Amino acid sequence: MDNCIFCKIIKKELPVDIVFENEHVIAFLDIAPINKGHTLVVPKTHHSSISTPSDEELFHIMKVGSQIGRALMKGCDYDGFNLHLSNGNCAGQVVDHAHLHVVPRIGTDGFHWNWRSQKYEEGEKEDYIKKMKSKLKLNES
Amino acid sequence: MDNCIFCKIIKKELPVDIVFENEHVIAFLDIAPINKGHTLVVPKTHHSSISTPSDEELFHIMKVGSQIGRALMKGCDYDGFNLHLSNGNCAGQVVDHAHLHVVPRIGTDGFHWNWRSQKYEEGEKEDYIKKMKSKLKLNES
Repeated sequence: MDNCIFCKIIKKELPVDIVFENEHVIAFLDIAPINKGHTLVVPKTHHSSISTPSDEELFHIMKVGSQIGRALMKGCDYDGFNLHLSNGNCAGQVVDHAHLHVVPRIGTDGFHWNWRSQKYEEGEKEDYIKKMKSKLKLNES
Repeated sequence: MDNCIFCKIIKKELPVDIVFENEHVIAFLDIAPINKGHTLVVPKTHHSSISTPSDEELFHIMKVGSQIGRALMKGCDYDGFNLHLSNGNCAGQVVDHAHLHVVPRIGTDGFHWNWRSQKYEEGEKEDYIKKMKSKLKLNES
């Protein structure tokens, strides 16, 4: 897509610090890292949402993300990592091209969500599951 | 693993509200949802870390997670979703069996990380990339 910053990066029209690249995905350092080594894994075709990439792209996003997390632990002395993806503006998506954050973590960094948990009313769980299943497009194998 | 709560769920020794299940993964409602419909996607074999599941499991975790996110938007009137995985206690992992959170989001829910961004010193990016690459086990195809 012409005015997408990640498509420009993929076409090498904008410079980034590449960690890994193959036919399906490119992984590069986030320019504003939560912790140093924070990497983005991006499918090479333009998808606004993570619900539309091909099966092959989905696999490579997860495989590369999980292995970069491991490499950050083994190579850069981190204790763990988060894989994080924001789908939609309300979820924190800023660039309109699906991307997975790999955020390396140490015990003392103090990051957390401000989330709270909710409780279901009687029968509400069943209602949510019914509505979700009515829209799920997945094979059971 | 004998004393793993998710392994007990997979073996149907503990009841949960199942959203989807196939040979590789099970997806069920989180008992303390951030927003209602919040779902966990769990590989059926025991892995503490997301760095060790098989390629097939990794694919299904991501495929099922992204499609459940879509179903929450289409079926339950959410505006977006987060996919979130915590690898290691410091990253927020509570159950020692890898799992992906699918958190449905609406514009008014007010959730955010308390994160701040850092800046690299001269030459530091290259150093991080070198260390990460030295531990990366990935094919470039």
